Amino acid sequence: MITINENYLKLKSSYLFADISRRVEKFQHSNPDMDVIKLGIGDVTLPLPDACIRALHEAVDEMGREKTFHGYGPEQGYSFLRETIAENDFASRGCDIDADEIFVSDGAKCDTGNFQELFSVDTVIAVPDPVYPVYVDTNVMAGRTGGDSQGRYEGIVYLESTEENAFVPDLPREKVDLIYLCYPNNPTGATITKEGLQKWVDFARENNALILFDAAYEAFIQDGDIPRSIYEIPGAREVAVEFRSFSKTAGFTGTRCAFTVVPTECRAFDASGNKIELHPLWSRRQTTKFNGVAYPIQKAAAAVYSREGQKQVAENIEFYLENARIIREQMHSLGYSCTGGVHSPYIWISGAGDSWEMFDLLLNQAGVVCTPGTGFGRCGEGYIRISAFNSRENVQKAMQRIGKALGK
Amino acid sequence: MITINENYLKLKSSYLFADISRRVEKFQHSNPDMDVIKLGIGDVTLPLPDACIRALHEAVDEMGREKTFHGYGPEQGYSFLRETIAENDFASRGCDIDADEIFVSDGAKCDTGNFQELFSVDTVIAVPDPVYPVYVDTNVMAGRTGGDSQGRYEGIVYLESTEENAFVPDLPREKVDLIYLCYPNNPTGATITKEGLQKWVDFARENNALILFDAAYEAFIQDGDIPRSIYEIPGAREVAVEFRSFSKTAGFTGTRCAFTVVPTECRAFDASGNKIELHPLWSRRQTTKFNGVAYPIQKAAAAVYSREGQKQVAENIEFYLENARIIREQMHSLGYSCTGGVHSPYIWISGAGDSWEMFDLLLNQAGVVCTPGTGFGRCGEGYIRISAFNSRENVQKAMQRIGKALGK
Repeated sequence: MITINENYLKLKSSYLFADISRRVEKFQHSNPDMDVIKLGIGDVTLPLPDACIRALHEAVDEMGREKTFHGYGPEQGYSFLRETIAENDFASRGCDIDADEIFVSDGAKCDTGNFQELFSVDTVIAVPDPVYPVYVDTNVMAGRTGGDSQGRYEGIVYLESTEENAFVPDLPREKVDLIYLCYPNNPTGATITKEGLQKWVDFARENNALILFDAAYEAFIQDGDIPRSIYEIPGAREVAVEFRSFSKTAGFTGTRCAFTVVPTECRAFDASGNKIELHPLWSRRQTTKFNGVAYPIQKAAAAVYSREGQKQVAENIEFYLENARIIREQMHSLGYSCTGGVHSPYIWISGAGDSWEMFDLLLNQAGVVCTPGTGFGRCGEGYIRISAFNSRENVQKAMQRIGKALGK
Repeated sequence: MITINENYLKLKSSYLFADISRRVEKFQHSNPDMDVIKLGIGDVTLPLPDACIRALHEAVDEMGREKTFHGYGPEQGYSFLRETIAENDFASRGCDIDADEIFVSDGAKCDTGNFQELFSVDTVIAVPDPVYPVYVDTNVMAGRTGGDSQGRYEGIVYLESTEENAFVPDLPREKVDLIYLCYPNNPTGATITKEGLQKWVDFARENNALILFDAAYEAFIQDGDIPRSIYEIPGAREVAVEFRSFSKTAGFTGTRCAFTVVPTECRAFDASGNKIELHPLWSRRQTTKFNGVAYPIQKAAAAVYSREGQKQVAENIEFYLENARIIREQMHSLGYSCTGGVHSPYIWISGAGDSWEMFDLLLNQAGVVCTPGTGFGRCGEGYIRISAFNSRENVQKAMQRIGKALGK
């Protein structure tokens, strides 16, 4: 008899953003004339940079001619892209990361979801609360948790991120093996200092733990002192894997390219406590279960690092950060306090009361979609997340409508 | 302490095609002037069809304009593609498959590798021998096997495919839960009749088993009586998941698009024997761990079904099948007997002796890369696989060189 992986039955009924979609569809169905403004899911709205468009067209032409056609590429990504990444994202910031340590993929969601496969089923994971749901759900599926109890899974160590600790959680007092961190944070938009991140690296080294560091939003950092990569922190190469993405950096949410950094020294252990390098394990996982990213898309990703690409990407980031400023100001003026929106496209708004109620209120009264904080975990209750990804016109209109709906 | 998934340590040292690459690189390094002809890995050589190139350019232009830009798409694929697939690949052959039952992905390798996640760790899997290594390795990683013993993993039921049974294995006598089948077969090139496939569907129904049917090579079938889809077989909707790919059909090996069909009736069971539908489980898996295929690539895949696309794809398939005919004739004339190469791009050549020795001989004496049969399993010993994916000129040159090297 073919039996299912019963861990799937522990999952809450649906993925957060699918839930939101359904509510929005229902509202739209009853209000067909309303132009709903979506500031919920973190999806970019500006088109791909010209440099990427040009690179795509050129690569597509290559795919149409026998002499320049590309079939299977290396599962880990083409050297031209891995080398450009190593130079521009790491060497330029003093991080010692080699091209061979970079694994190109079709998304940071996939990589942060898949990386846990490398570890034993009794691994104790620690996740921030609030948290990007993928870190949790993929571990539930893998059987590393018990059931859901009042919105939390048994067996997970939740790292509470609150206004009191400026959304940088304290080190855990329990034994933990695998620690998920994300800075600039999704959903709170908070950043971490080098000193703050050093504490986590030291903790991982002292406790034989491993950090999975999600840096998908690093392009939004405007202050040179805030770490863009965990490899800016001494000692991180042994204890940290880093996830990056072109989605938010260069508008690749519908184009799909990302990468994961696994330094050669990065280690876990076998049951007897012997060190095992993670680089060959991840390489084996990717060569067995993945077949690389489309050649034209890797060319487009490489074009992000051209002089023209860098200029266009910087302009886009600046545009979204100006949106974020507009959102922050309006929410402040309505009496809410906000985190994020400075080095991040997300504004985390406190004082929202029941966060699904606030979600419904903004949807029904203002036709604006946000994300209810509780969707990210228990510590998200009382908050909503507003995303700065939209046109200037829509952001302004949304803020006017919210002003009217919440006008105090 | 962060401990690894020790199942990874059971894996043989490397993935077959990575092994071959290394040998070829070494040969090429010592023989820099030799133009090595690759008939090993099944990688297409003809460029993308014009219809796909045009669709890609158009979609890239859409991605460059704010009004037509596409961010995150549905994880399951765009409706325009799912509907086209349902109509052209299934309705046209009398198969009752709805667009919602089609999950678009970036590769059949990924999907055949990932699908096992839905099942319990004590699932007994049955795989053909010889076999596409991904079916086996992904189950080893998941902990469904013991260690490697003389080239076979403990706990797997191997379905022996030999000349005696025309490479269609007998039904297993042991209890099995999850059965991998692939027709037209990789690596043997053999096909299965409707009657033959009906036996497997009946077996799965009678034994509460599930079939994972890999139809990545269906486009090569030239005979209307050979099933292109398992859903041509009555009763299959409840017991079979089907994997398809644009890789071999339309030259998408470096473009990455495929799809998996999970009919709504398709079922497994919970530990108490209650039926559980697989469609929502796979949907949950994909929405949590995957983020869809790039919009331009889905447009290119849809263009495969245009009148022009169908014509171009048919011409490409015909071209590769003519290569296959040339390979078969030469190998026959050298005294080898061959399977496949008629409804398949692969020719499976028997009488090869030690298959890695034959691989090395063809590489060193003829500068031709094939795939050693033993790389696909114990029953592959004595065989090599030659692929028809190359230019006419290279195939002819390779056959001349092989003729000289093996000249009898």
